[in-house]
Amino acid sequence: MSPFSLPSISPVTDVLRTSIRSKIDNKTKPLGSLGDLETLAMLLAEIQNTLSPELKNPKLILFAGDHGITEEPVSLYPKDVTWQMVLNFLSGGACANVFAKHSHIDVEVVDAGVDHDWEENTPKLIQRKIRKGTSNFLKQEAMSIEEAKETILSGIELLSEKQYESTNIFLFGEMGIGNTSAASLILSHLTEIPLRKLVGRGTGLNNSGKENKFKILTEAYQRTGKLKDPNEILSEFGGFEIGMMAGAMIGAAAQRKTFVVDGFISTAAFAIAYALNPTVKSYAIFSHLSEEEGHTVVLEHWKIKPLLRLNLRLGEGSGALAAYPLIELSVKFLNEMASFADAGVSNTDSK
Amino acid sequence: MSPFSLPSISPVTDVLRTSIRSKIDNKTKPLGSLGDLETLAMLLAEIQNTLSPELKNPKLILFAGDHGITEEPVSLYPKDVTWQMVLNFLSGGACANVFAKHSHIDVEVVDAGVDHDWEENTPKLIQRKIRKGTSNFLKQEAMSIEEAKETILSGIELLSEKQYESTNIFLFGEMGIGNTSAASLILSHLTEIPLRKLVGRGTGLNNSGKENKFKILTEAYQRTGKLKDPNEILSEFGGFEIGMMAGAMIGAAAQRKTFVVDGFISTAAFAIAYALNPTVKSYAIFSHLSEEEGHTVVLEHWKIKPLLRLNLRLGEGSGALAAYPLIELSVKFLNEMASFADAGVSNTDSK
Repeated sequence: MSPFSLPSISPVTDVLRTSIRSKIDNKTKPLGSLGDLETLAMLLAEIQNTLSPELKNPKLILFAGDHGITEEPVSLYPKDVTWQMVLNFLSGGACANVFAKHSHIDVEVVDAGVDHDWEENTPKLIQRKIRKGTSNFLKQEAMSIEEAKETILSGIELLSEKQYESTNIFLFGEMGIGNTSAASLILSHLTEIPLRKLVGRGTGLNNSGKENKFKILTEAYQRTGKLKDPNEILSEFGGFEIGMMAGAMIGAAAQRKTFVVDGFISTAAFAIAYALNPTVKSYAIFSHLSEEEGHTVVLEHWKIKPLLRLNLRLGEGSGALAAYPLIELSVKFLNEMASFADAGVSNTDSK
Repeated sequence: MSPFSLPSISPVTDVLRTSIRSKIDNKTKPLGSLGDLETLAMLLAEIQNTLSPELKNPKLILFAGDHGITEEPVSLYPKDVTWQMVLNFLSGGACANVFAKHSHIDVEVVDAGVDHDWEENTPKLIQRKIRKGTSNFLKQEAMSIEEAKETILSGIELLSEKQYESTNIFLFGEMGIGNTSAASLILSHLTEIPLRKLVGRGTGLNNSGKENKFKILTEAYQRTGKLKDPNEILSEFGGFEIGMMAGAMIGAAAQRKTFVVDGFISTAAFAIAYALNPTVKSYAIFSHLSEEEGHTVVLEHWKIKPLLRLNLRLGEGSGALAAYPLIELSVKFLNEMASFADAGVSNTDSK
């Protein structure tokens, strides 16, 4: 295994800020009237350090992994749904596929740690399996500290592959039955928000199911006590898909590329990446506010306003994909709208 | 002029509700996990009375008109911006054009009452001018009661034209310097919300500009006293673009076609249409919550949750266009996603 050395991330430069602002303000519209889309256009222009940002060859990467905690009654769906949904992604029938196709986004699926033996040559599946699912974190660490580091490095390395060279925007999604449980524990340790506020219904638990999940996760919290180190937190609670996504976020930012954060579980991956290097945040777009209750608490804690609030709680990058057209519109208004001078329209100054 | 007789609007039938719900619930995703997009899919399927709704030949129709109230200091931009922006729409340089092009939506511009003489054969402009701008409603009625009725009928008639036969979803937008003033008065009379809560910054007034606008609008309110009849309210405050859009909403609903409501001014048009026939509401999708303060108050008053909250306040259908991809995604997940059975994925029952 390679030593655990993370690539450096350059801060986003603001040298063009005044010029970008001026380009936005000269478009034929009242000042500031495109609201959050102006903020987004500014972000993309600054990340790309240009007045005319572009979205090149966007990719959705779905990370899949299994969780030993599913031995306990924390999820409504059986663990087999993880590998079954991987096959669904590969054959194009999942929500992620439908939404990605709408925006001409390629979908890639990474086996980060699914408990399944694939048929030989399963087409299009990127094999990065660390192990066949994490261990049950109620009883022991989900993975070793070496595995945790390997998981993160594997995500970083993935993003440096040739096939992503021309891509300048990534959408990350996940699939893993049981992974809201891991995400709640990760976020509680990294944000110091009480676990109670971060445990939700997942795929749709009722009140007593949710209460039971909270009891199990509280016990898991007590097993380790309070933790601070992101590698240790990943090792204790998993999962492989969350850690690999955290690595991919660092990998994207290290290449000065934008990435779109999906919902609650992706936000846990972001929290790990952020703990490893806070500059990663400058390259992130938060796509939506999930219906999973803890997501509101975490985003408010960080004072982040995501683009959409549609009560989605599906995962697999669906919120990132739903927000993607808004990202496209923000780039297009900046590049394609006429200025007051172009169009011969009077500005406020002329009154 | 034709007698003021409005077409009837059929209620949306719920005969397929159980079947549509079942189709949604058998998609490979946790129950309810697509949140507001599921509500939207249900709405479109019910309006079209089918399990497989489609969006056919979508059109953005932009209604433009001028306002006599611009003689008073109610807007930051000069009145000429209305006709200048019409030319910008026609030459493709406005935000509406850029956003519409993204979703392959045709843009049509209607002169409902712009104070301008167009060059002969101005291409693509639909000429429906009632009069060259309304009168100053601070001093007199904006238009006669006959003109108000003609305006609404003209909007209804427009939608029945041959060119829209194959269209089953309309986006409506507007352009008219001064029209937040008319919209505030219309909405205050029709909702009984105090005028104070409905007067905002428009294209960007500062605090004293807004206060001054409020004083002028209060005086206009006092000139007429409380009104209830939608035709009379349109006649007193205008404008031609608002009334024609109200007619177009009724025209769309009468043909069982969906229409997408944009921001504050379009909501005033909707309020007129709703007062004329409340069934129009069943065919409406509210696209976004505008930054214009009164929009929040009105939508909360009606308990309507719009799709987007992006602090837009541009008008010209920009919010409707920004939400349109979500409408497309809602139709696509319903038509294209695999079911649990199709994909061989275990449902909760199998646990």
